[in-house]
Amino acid sequence: MIRPIFISAFASVLLAVPALADPLPSWNDTDAKTTIIDFVDRVTDPTSSDYVTPADRIAVFDNDGTLWAEQPVYFQLFFALDRLRALAAADPSILTSDTLRAAAEGNLEAALAGGEAALLEIVSVSHSGLSVDAYQDAVRDWLDTARHPVTGMAYDEMTYQPMLELLRYLRDEDFATYIVSGGGIHFMRAFAEEAYGIPPENVIGSAGKTSYAVVDGVPTVLKDPGIAFIDDKEGKPVGIDTHIGKRPILVGGNSDGDFAMLEWATAGDGPRLGLIVHHTDGQREFAYDRDSHIGQLVRGLDEGPGRGWLIVDMANDWSRIYSGQR
Amino acid sequence: MIRPIFISAFASVLLAVPALADPLPSWNDTDAKTTIIDFVDRVTDPTSSDYVTPADRIAVFDNDGTLWAEQPVYFQLFFALDRLRALAAADPSILTSDTLRAAAEGNLEAALAGGEAALLEIVSVSHSGLSVDAYQDAVRDWLDTARHPVTGMAYDEMTYQPMLELLRYLRDEDFATYIVSGGGIHFMRAFAEEAYGIPPENVIGSAGKTSYAVVDGVPTVLKDPGIAFIDDKEGKPVGIDTHIGKRPILVGGNSDGDFAMLEWATAGDGPRLGLIVHHTDGQREFAYDRDSHIGQLVRGLDEGPGRGWLIVDMANDWSRIYSGQR
Repeated sequence: MIRPIFISAFASVLLAVPALADPLPSWNDTDAKTTIIDFVDRVTDPTSSDYVTPADRIAVFDNDGTLWAEQPVYFQLFFALDRLRALAAADPSILTSDTLRAAAEGNLEAALAGGEAALLEIVSVSHSGLSVDAYQDAVRDWLDTARHPVTGMAYDEMTYQPMLELLRYLRDEDFATYIVSGGGIHFMRAFAEEAYGIPPENVIGSAGKTSYAVVDGVPTVLKDPGIAFIDDKEGKPVGIDTHIGKRPILVGGNSDGDFAMLEWATAGDGPRLGLIVHHTDGQREFAYDRDSHIGQLVRGLDEGPGRGWLIVDMANDWSRIYSGQR
Repeated sequence: MIRPIFISAFASVLLAVPALADPLPSWNDTDAKTTIIDFVDRVTDPTSSDYVTPADRIAVFDNDGTLWAEQPVYFQLFFALDRLRALAAADPSILTSDTLRAAAEGNLEAALAGGEAALLEIVSVSHSGLSVDAYQDAVRDWLDTARHPVTGMAYDEMTYQPMLELLRYLRDEDFATYIVSGGGIHFMRAFAEEAYGIPPENVIGSAGKTSYAVVDGVPTVLKDPGIAFIDDKEGKPVGIDTHIGKRPILVGGNSDGDFAMLEWATAGDGPRLGLIVHHTDGQREFAYDRDSHIGQLVRGLDEGPGRGWLIVDMANDWSRIYSGQR
């Protein structure tokens, strides 16, 4: 029984110096930063009445618009269009609808005229018919070469530096960090570990149907057509319950698609922190909220402050935006 | 950068003494024990060509018949019957079929005459219409009082001591241990942490439908009627892919319901260990395999040895069976 105490005392001494360093250097010295650090201090201080045992330090974050950018459309849609175009070049017969034909032509407006159903059709067709392993190789290959139409940056350079610092800070303080996103679970897992330090088992997302089969003698998990789970809105608490089985104490989001998980998590007993990234910086990023077709934020702005949620003002609270900014 | 090295060196010295102790005291000194320890030694030895980085040391285990007993029927079915009886006493109108009426009367044979569909109907009706939290309280209350019809033991005393030791040994060697079972995910999570040291986020199982709603002002995840996912047979690799997103390097099971995940995991590159618990001990436990209606094992016995899987002979390889044995 002596061992854990020894290590722990030893580690504490060694940790004392790094703890003096600013854990969130890309956050300005505003209330947002103070609120976050105060929360983390309280839940990690064994003498605090707000102390939370490490096993219950669960922090979950939306991805699109919270950890990386999401304009002019979700980045995964760019991947889906590029992949659909390549697939259709090899076999045009896969374009069985106006939606798919428009998508393969890169006519985004026509492709998305059918709303969410059209989006799901494009994703379903472009994301199925191959193994999970082959699919994730394709995502990684695409990330290596594709460039964002507005910034010209690689998509995984458009992760938010302040949020990367927050994720690292939380893990240093023995939080488990998860992604809970409407994005595809296999899509995000292809880069989440490298981009965010979040391993596959901590990525929760929307999912297409999958199956297991021995293909040409090789045991394989396959991505099939059809949608198995939509991890958005009321689906987010459901996804968290299915994958984690505990209620998070810290939730970060940016749109009303995150409202339900913010509501559920912050309604739990004990200390809770809800956080909304508000896209206020049209200069350095994109400014949008109530009227946006992507990342619409109405209820969060109207009710968030009254519920004690922290509204992060990107223009004011962040000294730097993209991790890949030079 | 000095800190991690310091702690690690310090920890190694302190860990040297416990490492000399037998990590599997309830395993007899047979080939099974040697095979397991040799595998763990190889994948954890940084100088070995079979070394596996801790992040990829994923070990998954079936629950019923692998970590605890499963005869004369799955323990969860006893819970379902007890709960159905209590629910029907309060409101007999819930018994809308012959299957449910037989189940509420405790007539197991008639209740299960409809096979898997009947089983799912009983589980669906008895496991829905309440919050996940309330459901798990009910499971824990039941475990506190219910007793096994043959042994008279509490069900959670019928976990296998040798497997508890294996789980602890693997975690001590920086494996992540998971349950991957046909049992209900919420059912198992109610006791898995206390019984096995496996936290909720590492429990994968079959799942009823769930939804999120604000009920009387309280944000709640609810268990609804209907089945969302069956974590059995070909569903097991699918469940592992969905929840973990990595292929395990060690898989333990006991029936042909585990064949697919054993096949998939052991087909991966590098060192792999597949393990089947063979119920050979009619004296101390239950002896069954090829002809059993529960935990049927045919293909695993026929093909397992040829695939290099370890067949654990309970009668011969285990010096003790139940953790709750006095």
